[in-house]
Amino acid sequence: MPEVIRAEGRLDLVITPNQGRRINVSEHINATATITEQVHLTRRSMHYWRVTLDHPPVNIFGPEAIPQLNEVITALETDVEVKVVVFDSAVQGFFLTHYDFLAPIENTTRLPPGPTGLQPLPDMLVRLSRAPVVSIASIRGRATGVGSELALACDMRFASREKAILSHFEVGAGVVPGGGPMARLPRLMGRGRALEVLLGADDIHGDLAERYGYVNRSLPDSDLDTFVEALATRIASFDKRAISETKRFADVASLPPDFEIAPEWDVCFASIMRPAAQERIKKLLELGLHKPGDVENRLGHYVGRLG
Amino acid sequence: MPEVIRAEGRLDLVITPNQGRRINVSEHINATATITEQVHLTRRSMHYWRVTLDHPPVNIFGPEAIPQLNEVITALETDVEVKVVVFDSAVQGFFLTHYDFLAPIENTTRLPPGPTGLQPLPDMLVRLSRAPVVSIASIRGRATGVGSELALACDMRFASREKAILSHFEVGAGVVPGGGPMARLPRLMGRGRALEVLLGADDIHGDLAERYGYVNRSLPDSDLDTFVEALATRIASFDKRAISETKRFADVASLPPDFEIAPEWDVCFASIMRPAAQERIKKLLELGLHKPGDVENRLGHYVGRLG
Amino acid sequence: MPEVIRAEGRLDLVITPNQGRRINVSEHINATATITEQVHLTRRSMHYWRVTLDHPPVNIFGPEAIPQLNEVITALETDVEVKVVVFDSAVQGFFLTHYDFLAPIENTTRLPPGPTGLQPLPDMLVRLSRAPVVSIASIRGRATGVGSELALACDMRFASREKAILSHFEVGAGVVPGGGPMARLPRLMGRGRALEVLLGADDIHGDLAERYGYVNRSLPDSDLDTFVEALATRIASFDKRAISETKRFADVASLPPDFEIAPEWDVCFASIMRPAAQERIKKLLELGLHKPGDVENRLGHYVGRLG
Repeated sequence: MPEVIRAEGRLDLVITPNQGRRINVSEHINATATITEQVHLTRRSMHYWRVTLDHPPVNIFGPEAIPQLNEVITALETDVEVKVVVFDSAVQGFFLTHYDFLAPIENTTRLPPGPTGLQPLPDMLVRLSRAPVVSIASIRGRATGVGSELALACDMRFASREKAILSHFEVGAGVVPGGGPMARLPRLMGRGRALEVLLGADDIHGDLAERYGYVNRSLPDSDLDTFVEALATRIASFDKRAISETKRFADVASLPPDFEIAPEWDVCFASIMRPAAQERIKKLLELGLHKPGDVENRLGHYVGRLG
Repeated sequence: MPEVIRAEGRLDLVITPNQGRRINVSEHINATATITEQVHLTRRSMHYWRVTLDHPPVNIFGPEAIPQLNEVITALETDVEVKVVVFDSAVQGFFLTHYDFLAPIENTTRLPPGPTGLQPLPDMLVRLSRAPVVSIASIRGRATGVGSELALACDMRFASREKAILSHFEVGAGVVPGGGPMARLPRLMGRGRALEVLLGADDIHGDLAERYGYVNRSLPDSDLDTFVEALATRIASFDKRAISETKRFADVASLPPDFEIAPEWDVCFASIMRPAAQERIKKLLELGLHKPGDVENRLGHYVGRLG
Repeated sequence: MPEVIRAEGRLDLVITPNQGRRINVSEHINATATITEQVHLTRRSMHYWRVTLDHPPVNIFGPEAIPQLNEVITALETDVEVKVVVFDSAVQGFFLTHYDFLAPIENTTRLPPGPTGLQPLPDMLVRLSRAPVVSIASIRGRATGVGSELALACDMRFASREKAILSHFEVGAGVVPGGGPMARLPRLMGRGRALEVLLGADDIHGDLAERYGYVNRSLPDSDLDTFVEALATRIASFDKRAISETKRFADVASLPPDFEIAPEWDVCFASIMRPAAQERIKKLLELGLHKPGDVENRLGHYVGRLG
């Protein structure tokens, strides 16, 4: 983690120390004041921010992270100085992985819709895509489910050739993905490859991700940070208005309409409640899902063994 | 050909023996009961079907194959168990090639529109794309004209690096393609490459097809069957409803509307009747079109020598 | 320059000799009769034309070239014989570069809209894309700003692997691009790579341009001319009506609507007038913009050092 530069921004997220970050979910629901910070905001400068996903051991994304990510997205939307933000991870092996299957489902479903009228997670993702800021996903480790959806909502994606794995495993678990990938993937890589990613539900490593257009480029792991840093620093030196106006025009040609994304979330949650998904998720949990180990590391392999 | 597994499905296509499959077209027009089966359906399991195109010597697609393919498409739409279908070929060197230029044109034009309101061939292709089943084209040999259109209507395409050739030769023969490629190709590979395929009208081999996104991947010929088999078996193990709901969302983002495809067919048939096409097709027939040999094998080369 | 073949076409552009082509801008404004020809039309045959961009030393595109290009576009729209046109450059190192920053802005803004209702430059570009003729950009040297926009308006793009550089440097100069790239690039290469090109504003060399789909293919420099010549000659042998009808269908699936392109131009000119752009352009001019040398050669590098 780089040193935190505290600019005179509106946001003041607490950067917690590394130890003791993981606490029991059942203890802290409704006790948001004590929830461990999983989404760190670091200001490299007024113009260039980093958002680091830090929920060890496997960077699962659950309902308690939603307000944290929302605070960051709101800051990106409203800060007048920020021009570029890089999303990365502090957890080895995981950029950001699937949604929390252990959190009570009401913790998610009771959250009110966001400003776009979408449910909170897709709401934040479409707002990130439209924010007047360049967003870059620097992907090292696994980006699956929500992790892939966050990466896809960013403006650009760069991946470690050796260490990045992108995927949508959900269909393999009986679940319809919910955070926009059916709307976003075909626009990025064409129908054929998008359907392979979604319906094959397998792990996509760095080089194939580049060939498919899932990421802008895959780079040797040792070059990834230098490349992303140079690009972000470069963009941070440009004029914010030229950036945001140019991006807004490209949005018209490239962003899916919200009404295409909206139903994905509802159908996703409906699918999770069905026996086909419940049985598969139960099997995955028995095999070791939600814990460090082979199932989380090779989720694509394991969903192929459930049916 | 694998052994046929007869499930308790509605469909009961006759799997004919390999010998004597080719009969004289003029003999069997209006004698549909005796038409040789060119479209074989094999059930590897309840969930995983194969459709094998088998019209030697060069796998031409003509009006007599339309009801055969239609029966398969209808089964894919309505069977409650099937999850994945692979289209392949039993004819060496040809996945599926161009439309039959020798069949009387009335044999095609007198066929009533299908359920979508489109003419039979484009009707079947758009229904295949929307069927609640994953369709995979396993391309070894030439996929040109209708062959490419069928591959493009499938959800995914995998090609033999050494033996696959994809193309739209039609413009080179004075003909406007008719089964949807102008609607599908630009969405798959972008305008520039789509126009090169359509207006250059040349043969595209496996590796270039992958670089252009014409196919998902090209694989060494010796790996193609294993790869496709593993993917199909994997998908067949997933939950059908999760598959079909996910696909339906992706359809919204990736399928051309039917009204874009509809006029292609009419304009295609109008173009065939024009002297420019008639002369070119006549020359191709004189050179050896419709017969095994160099013209069918290297159609892209030969259409470049007609003008 | 190849030998000029004078067909019995309507157009009769003067092909000027190579010497004395560059004249002082301040001298020839409002003296269009004496403006040096920067856009050469050569008819290789009735069916195959070349348009050569020739404004040494760095192939800047300015208001005085607009009527010249317009005459060519009009001819391509209306000539009944032409089937294919190749755009190339006679200036070493530059296919076509940015707009003229030294010409009085009124020389551009006073020009009336074209037949599409768009301002002249975007008007010509969308008309080129819709013309019933196959347009091919043969890119050797830098295609930046207007140069990239012209290439993107062509139906296909082929690049010298060693010598082609494509880019949109504009955002790096505080300027919003104006000739359609925000509408065209995402449709060609997906949102992520398009935003990298537009907002990273850096030079994209031949091979990366191919990987991104910015060009159809990059070819070894020694093969580029042979390849493009063969493709153009091939297309010129096809039937014009089959070409134009096929292209028109592909247009529906791939061209941005004019209303998406229209506002880019206005916002571009508004952005140029802002201090952020004026300061950056002034710095670039002091460093050597508009003159042969390192700034024009490596514009991507230099815009990264202005902020």
